[in-house]
Amino acid sequence: MVERRRPIFVKDAIDKVMEQKRRGQTEILAISDCEDRFLAEPIIATHDVPPFDRSPYDGFAIRSIDTEGCSSTNPLQFKVIDEIGAGQVSNMQVREREAIRIMTGAAIPKGADAVVMLELVKESESDRQKFITLSRMMKENDNISFKGEDTRKGTELIEKGTLINPGVKALLATFGYHKVKVAKKPVLGLIATGSELLDVSEPLQPGKIRNSNGPMIEAQIKRAGGSVRKYDLCQDDLPSLYQMIHKAIEECDMVITTGGVSVGDFDYLPHIYEQLQAQLLFNKIGMRPGSVTSVAEKEGKLLFGLSGNPSACYVGFELYVRPIIRYWLHSNKPFLKSGKAYLQKDFPKANPFHRFVRSSVDFSNGKLCVEPVGLDKSNVVTSLAWANSLMVLPGGTRGYKQGDVVNVLFLEEQRGSAVLWEEIPKSSR
Amino acid sequence: MVERRRPIFVKDAIDKVMEQKRRGQTEILAISDCEDRFLAEPIIATHDVPPFDRSPYDGFAIRSIDTEGCSSTNPLQFKVIDEIGAGQVSNMQVREREAIRIMTGAAIPKGADAVVMLELVKESESDRQKFITLSRMMKENDNISFKGEDTRKGTELIEKGTLINPGVKALLATFGYHKVKVAKKPVLGLIATGSELLDVSEPLQPGKIRNSNGPMIEAQIKRAGGSVRKYDLCQDDLPSLYQMIHKAIEECDMVITTGGVSVGDFDYLPHIYEQLQAQLLFNKIGMRPGSVTSVAEKEGKLLFGLSGNPSACYVGFELYVRPIIRYWLHSNKPFLKSGKAYLQKDFPKANPFHRFVRSSVDFSNGKLCVEPVGLDKSNVVTSLAWANSLMVLPGGTRGYKQGDVVNVLFLEEQRGSAVLWEEIPKSSR
Repeated sequence: MVERRRPIFVKDAIDKVMEQKRRGQTEILAISDCEDRFLAEPIIATHDVPPFDRSPYDGFAIRSIDTEGCSSTNPLQFKVIDEIGAGQVSNMQVREREAIRIMTGAAIPKGADAVVMLELVKESESDRQKFITLSRMMKENDNISFKGEDTRKGTELIEKGTLINPGVKALLATFGYHKVKVAKKPVLGLIATGSELLDVSEPLQPGKIRNSNGPMIEAQIKRAGGSVRKYDLCQDDLPSLYQMIHKAIEECDMVITTGGVSVGDFDYLPHIYEQLQAQLLFNKIGMRPGSVTSVAEKEGKLLFGLSGNPSACYVGFELYVRPIIRYWLHSNKPFLKSGKAYLQKDFPKANPFHRFVRSSVDFSNGKLCVEPVGLDKSNVVTSLAWANSLMVLPGGTRGYKQGDVVNVLFLEEQRGSAVLWEEIPKSSR
Repeated sequence: MVERRRPIFVKDAIDKVMEQKRRGQTEILAISDCEDRFLAEPIIATHDVPPFDRSPYDGFAIRSIDTEGCSSTNPLQFKVIDEIGAGQVSNMQVREREAIRIMTGAAIPKGADAVVMLELVKESESDRQKFITLSRMMKENDNISFKGEDTRKGTELIEKGTLINPGVKALLATFGYHKVKVAKKPVLGLIATGSELLDVSEPLQPGKIRNSNGPMIEAQIKRAGGSVRKYDLCQDDLPSLYQMIHKAIEECDMVITTGGVSVGDFDYLPHIYEQLQAQLLFNKIGMRPGSVTSVAEKEGKLLFGLSGNPSACYVGFELYVRPIIRYWLHSNKPFLKSGKAYLQKDFPKANPFHRFVRSSVDFSNGKLCVEPVGLDKSNVVTSLAWANSLMVLPGGTRGYKQGDVVNVLFLEEQRGSAVLWEEIPKSSR
């Protein structure tokens, strides 16, 4: 007999999952190993930037007062008393009509209050003494980058939970974070169920297909920032599936299963949640695909029961698992970034529920354009590969038309969002 | 004396570098290790999808002809003669008024030409024989996914040079690519020069700063798909710098230096290119920042001389090094993806040259909006971390105004582009 399940709203389902959110532990990594990890502490400026008054150009440090009256018709000569290479500090003090040769980035020497760019002086030598000739006036502070003008010591520059990209890494280096406190990756147990599944290395057999959800979810987990513990493919057999899930719960921080969550005779997950005495958060959501996505909780660990259908599995992961992983990684923006885009093709399917369509977002003359990938039958398979976004099509309409404005969730955008997408009022669609 | 260099156009500089492009070698990886690598061969469908006629739903396989005249007032009963679990194949043939229980994804049994969804039948049992009662007519082919309807065997699905994301990995798994031919990562030697540089782990000293370009470029190389071989920090000292670069050329596929490319007294790279008898492609570009970016070629290997200035270094990498790495990785879309966006703030700096401004792109009601990060002095440092794009501001103007349409290069977009950005005519700015 078919079990009747009451669907809940997508956002309520996400809320229910997020009620179980936890911060992960932290670990210390060498800066060279920290790429693509998430900061578990903010980056604080440990010193002023620049750390000292410095020259932004190659040139000569002088006293501006000595350039009084200087012009092309009245050029003035300065005696070059020292030369400061990058990283060096001069012991000399600049006095009247003296200059010190200074390299880009070097500290302004005592006495000087301006830098003349190399290109603007004429160099000369007489009796092994170098001179420069200047033909314009300089003002106090000309061409000086002042200590702290970019950033003050103590400023919080980057919040915790941020992905370490090349620019973030440059900041870590600048401020001496050679050991970086990052979030430990959560370990996600991954169990693909279904007697129809072959391993990727197996030849096709009648009635069977290769397990593509497992490798796909593995990559999704890694993209989200987690690590994966894979379990063997599991036949549709209650005792062994129970054993495997029980083991995975013990060994991992959370567990993902694919398949077996529906109401068919071989859908064992509902029975297993019962046997485990896990608290079922929901087993039916008002969404397509992925309506049977189920989530349960056992002793603080989440069990994500994703559908065996590849699209449903993909979408279920991004909506329900990803934000839990990102929160675990100390992010305060755990949700997929959303935005509005113009639909490029009619989407005539009517639908009582929210639909999440794997889509491709692109730009055209400053406009964000989105179209579904894999709407045509011939593209169903490749839609897996070309989606960079999920289009959110709220239910209760007769479909959508080219030019409609729709919400889009960006799958490859790493900044994330603190909030879920904002529903678009019907009137403006 | 100051050397005079003649600047070349940015696009000409990129062309000159790309004339040296080469494809890298390939290697075979297990599918579980292939994430974030680049396909060195296209993915071809090795079988039809679906591989057999199958049921998209849980239900009963029947002969549509037997439902003739069936309705709620004239329900018809069918005898259930077999049950096919997922992955199983039935040996039975469906005959008149017979049905076979079928799971989602299972192969349609002989004789049947339609599937009735589980929810639409009434199940019953009599003398241990199961029956179903149906109250609507079915048409031939109802609820059958036909062999090959999604994709035909032999179709090229994904081109070589594509980054392996979760969806691409799902395709590899579907078609049994358990060993994946990927592009070998190019090894980039990385040498940071400058006597002012401290290692990240060293305390600050007067006149010195920590080496942030090295760690930053390391992360940029990895983001682009290359691997890094780091060399020690190099003082501004001609013989040891020469030795180190010479060694790096021998050990690596290409070499990046930071610093030392300008015309100052401690800028040794020009001398080293000469000593190496390397062919200088250019040493001055009409762009800001990064005008002194220099590229030379020695026996087919490229030497990228990036500026020591962090912004210039960052931009120089993305414009000149990244496309060479992506081409090496077998991509035919080696350039950064570009798009047009609306400028959100006045950018009043006049500039004779193309300016590449580290920027943040965002979306607002379907419009692409861009603003520079780090224009205010207080943000210079964090601009390193928040840029997700480079804004291209062509020279020869008196600056740009809020609302102007400008080109943007997306730093985190992985699809890339086969061509460089298209110049925006002055009239439309």
